[in-house]
Parts: sequence; structure tokens; C-alpha cells
Amino acid sequence: MSEPVRESTRKVVWQRVCILGVGLLGGSIGIRLLRDGLAADVVGYGRNEFRLKTAIELGAIRQGFLTVEEAARGADFVIACLPVQEIPVALSWASKSARRTAILTDVGSTKASIVKAVGAIKMSQVFVGSHPLAGSERSGVENANDSLFDNKLVVLTPTSESNPHAIELLEGFWGSLGATSLRMSPEGHDEAMSMTSHLPHVIASILAAATPERLTPLAANGWKDSTRIASGEPKLWRQILEENQSHVLHALKNFATISGQWIDALEARDFDRVEQLLKAGKRIRDVVGNRHTSS
Amino acid sequence: MSEPVRESTRKVVWQRVCILGVGLLGGSIGIRLLRDGLAADVVGYGRNEFRLKTAIELGAIRQGFLTVEEAARGADFVIACLPVQEIPVALSWASKSARRTAILTDVGSTKASIVKAVGAIKMSQVFVGSHPLAGSERSGVENANDSLFDNKLVVLTPTSESNPHAIELLEGFWGSLGATSLRMSPEGHDEAMSMTSHLPHVIASILAAATPERLTPLAANGWKDSTRIASGEPKLWRQILEENQSHVLHALKNFATISGQWIDALEARDFDRVEQLLKAGKRIRDVVGNRHTSS
Repeated sequence: MSEPVRESTRKVVWQRVCILGVGLLGGSIGIRLLRDGLAADVVGYGRNEFRLKTAIELGAIRQGFLTVEEAARGADFVIACLPVQEIPVALSWASKSARRTAILTDVGSTKASIVKAVGAIKMSQVFVGSHPLAGSERSGVENANDSLFDNKLVVLTPTSESNPHAIELLEGFWGSLGATSLRMSPEGHDEAMSMTSHLPHVIASILAAATPERLTPLAANGWKDSTRIASGEPKLWRQILEENQSHVLHALKNFATISGQWIDALEARDFDRVEQLLKAGKRIRDVVGNRHTSS
Repeated sequence: MSEPVRESTRKVVWQRVCILGVGLLGGSIGIRLLRDGLAADVVGYGRNEFRLKTAIELGAIRQGFLTVEEAARGADFVIACLPVQEIPVALSWASKSARRTAILTDVGSTKASIVKAVGAIKMSQVFVGSHPLAGSERSGVENANDSLFDNKLVVLTPTSESNPHAIELLEGFWGSLGATSLRMSPEGHDEAMSMTSHLPHVIASILAAATPERLTPLAANGWKDSTRIASGEPKLWRQILEENQSHVLHALKNFATISGQWIDALEARDFDRVEQLLKAGKRIRDVVGNRHTSS
């Protein structure tokens, strides 16, 4: 107790964590690792020198690099926090310079295509996909914080080829950040997310777009809650929807079917049916309640 | 300054405010009026004696009555905070016992049918419709609080027959509760609300209903924000949608048209178009930002 340095040393799990893309998620990972002394060193890759300097100033990384290969050199843990379509290529570069025993993962919102693409790369390291359910309409390392993952869920998508020990180490990684892990297949993950995350994004976007600008001063809390995620970055979401096109299309068609039932009920002035439909929605919403913390 | 009783007396605006329906909105009005000494007395009407006692204990009213006529006796301000379809009848009863010079208003989420129905009642008092944009998926006097209306908008829907002095007094009433008033026609209000409030409610309900229950553990902040209002009381919302059927139907069909554009773009794998659609939604959402306080 009188030697805090030892206490801190005891907790070190990783020698060198490499964060590829130091934005909201990557930055929050680095801040937490450094705050808790979980890594002897944390470095980052980014395209923009100025933003890497900001990340250093905010305590998210100790050093920044403008190439993936340099950033990953000697790393025993590499996590790609990039737009989904950039992840496989970045990890393939990282595998060239990271330790042969390193664990590689990512935070991408889609998993099937990433797991397939990374699986096709010849590398000595183990890769297991991660998706922390901690997104936000905000972005950038300026919004990163040490508690982003507290009480959040992280879906891990190991395959039959994944090393069991590596999966456990990855669960330990997310647990040390405050999150709880669960395992799903990459395909099962993408199908589930098409309904719980990607469809809501599309719907929020449509709802915002359907509102005439002249009426926006009348938008109150209900409208604001329902459309909040529509502020997300279109270029990032385009990629997510591209990667998960078939499931999202299916989910949107299912949504359109229920919309059609609503239109029929309203046209027929069948308000008993309207009340039934409202109850069906309320029942599912009330199951979820406010279990997780809203942020 | 040494006589706080006088200071409090100076602020009294109303002798007897009668709140018809002491739930979230009615209760919050009473708590604020009594907290700030804006009314010499505040009484309430309710159907349930137990809940009226709770309202008294929470400082929302001083006395409760089980009939509207008794509650409104001698009132110089009557505000109906009831389900929209009960408002006209309740105000017609209130007009029999309230002062001849009383101002009558309501908090209904639809206005055209209420203003029309109340306009057809023979009464000596002035009625001007109000709609405070301060709804919530919560309900009941237990959730009432003294700051519900702070920084909120209230739409007043006077008609060409409304007494200008009464409109100003009503603006003063809402101003004393912390809100800002604006004036719209009853029909213009209902059309606007079909897009900024009623459509979002329907969409949130569909989105919740479209989520398989087995996936609810994966619902994160995006899903929760987008569906929050779906927890609202189906019986209340049925009435709102019934009163505003034609505008809501029009808004929902417009939503379905944009959904169709999305389905076409996803089916064609036209992700440039997807990105355009995402940008259109983001543009409107970003206009609103987080101007009002989320609650």
C-alpha cells in the first residue's frame, strides 16, 4: 500500500497496446488503459498528425504514428477502431509488425465480412472480432472518456478456429474496461444488429428527413429522442449499411409491412386496431426499460 | 424584505386554480403554482380518491374533488389535463360552476376538434386552447415536478373570436411556469404536430414492435432513444391519433414514400444514394441539435 508503483505494475496486462484510429471508441479505450495502468504503453495510428497530438494531450495514447505498420511494431494487443471497410486492410498491415503472439481485434459494427476478410489474411497472430455496443452520434477523440464502456455489452464473434485462450484474454480486456462480453457467430451478430442498431439508424434518418425544416422549432423531446442517432456520420453509416445490406433490407421491409398495417388501420379508422398496434410496441419497449445507462 | 408573506401575496395572480386531471402535467402545474405562490388556492378534480390524496401529499393541489362541477366552483382559472376526448365535456361541466370571468384552457395534444367542440358549448367564460410541448413517456402525479415546463414551448390556439386580453393572461400563466408561448391556428397546430410529435410516436411504436423479444438484451442506446416514446399510454395515444387521423395518415404515407426510396437504394446496392439519404436526415437533425433540455 505504501508502494503505489508496485500496485500499478501488478495490474499491467499488456506491454504495448496499439489503437488503430484514435476517435471516440479508440480514444476511450486508450484513456481507460492508461488511467488504470493496464498497459505499459499505448500507441496509436492516425491519418492526421494534429489529431494524434490531441489524442496524446487527452491521455488516450503516449505516441502516435502515421502508418499502421510503425504503430503496430512490437504490440501484443492491436485493436482496429476504424470505419468498417478499412479494418481488414489495416489489420493485415498490423500483422506484419506486431508480435507473433499478439491478439488482434476490432470494434466494427458489422462482423461477418470483417471476420471473413481477416480470416483470409495469412498471419501468425490470433484475430477475434469485437463489437462494443457503445456507439454514439458523437465522434472524435474530444468526446472520448474513461467510462464509455462501463456497463456496456461487447459482442465477440469467435469462429470454430479461434483459439479459446485468446477469446478469454479478449473477454478479460473488455472486462477491464468495464464491459460485459457475450459470444455470437459473426452472421448471427449481423442479423441481430440489423434490427437493434442498423434499422433504428435508418428509421431515425427517415423521420428527420420527413420533417419540414420550418417545423423544427416545434421539435420537442419525443422528436429529439427518436431522431438523435440520425446525426451520426453518413460516411461511416454508409459503410455499415453496405456491409450488412441484405439483413438491413430485410429488416426495413419488415418495418414497411408493419407501417402498412398502421396505414390500413388509420385509413379504416379502426382505432381498436390502432390501440392493439400501440400495445404491441409498448410491450417490447417496456421489456427493455432503461436497463443500460443512457448517455 | 422582512415580511415574506407580503412578498408572496404580491405574486398571487389567481384566486382559485382548478386542475381537471392531476397527473404528470396537471400535477406539475399545481406544484409550480403553489411553490411560487402564484395562486391563492389550487384544487383538483380526479376520478380516484386515493390518487387525489397523493396529489395533495405531493403539494400539487390543496383539495381534491370527485366531480368536475364541485372542483371548478368559484375558480377563476380552469385547466383541463385529461385525455383529449374527455376535455370538451369536462370543460362544459366546469363552465357551470366556475366564475363567469374565468379563463378556461387545456393541455391537449390535439387542438382542432377540442377548440371546435368547446366553441359549440354555451358558456360565459373565455376558452383558449393550449398545448405545452412537455410530454413524456412517464405519467402520473408521482412524476410531476416543479420544473416540467421550464424552457418548454406552449402552443396557444386562439381563434378570431378569442378575447385578446384573455390570450395575454394565458401567455402570462405559461410564462409564470417557465415556458414560452407561441400562437398557431388549431388546424395549423394539428398538422405540425402530426409530423413533429404524432408520427414519431407511431414510428417509435413500429420500431419497438419490429424487434424480436429475444434480441432485446442487445438493444443499446440508439434503440432505446429511438423507441423511448413507444412506452406512452396506448389509450391516450389512441385518442390523439383518432383526433388527428387525417394529418397523421398523411405524415405516415410520406414516411412510407421515403422508406420506399431507401428500399430501392438498398436493393440496387446504390450506396451513393444511401449516403445522400443519410445526409438529408442528418441535415434536419443537426438543425435541431440539442436546443431544448432532454428529460
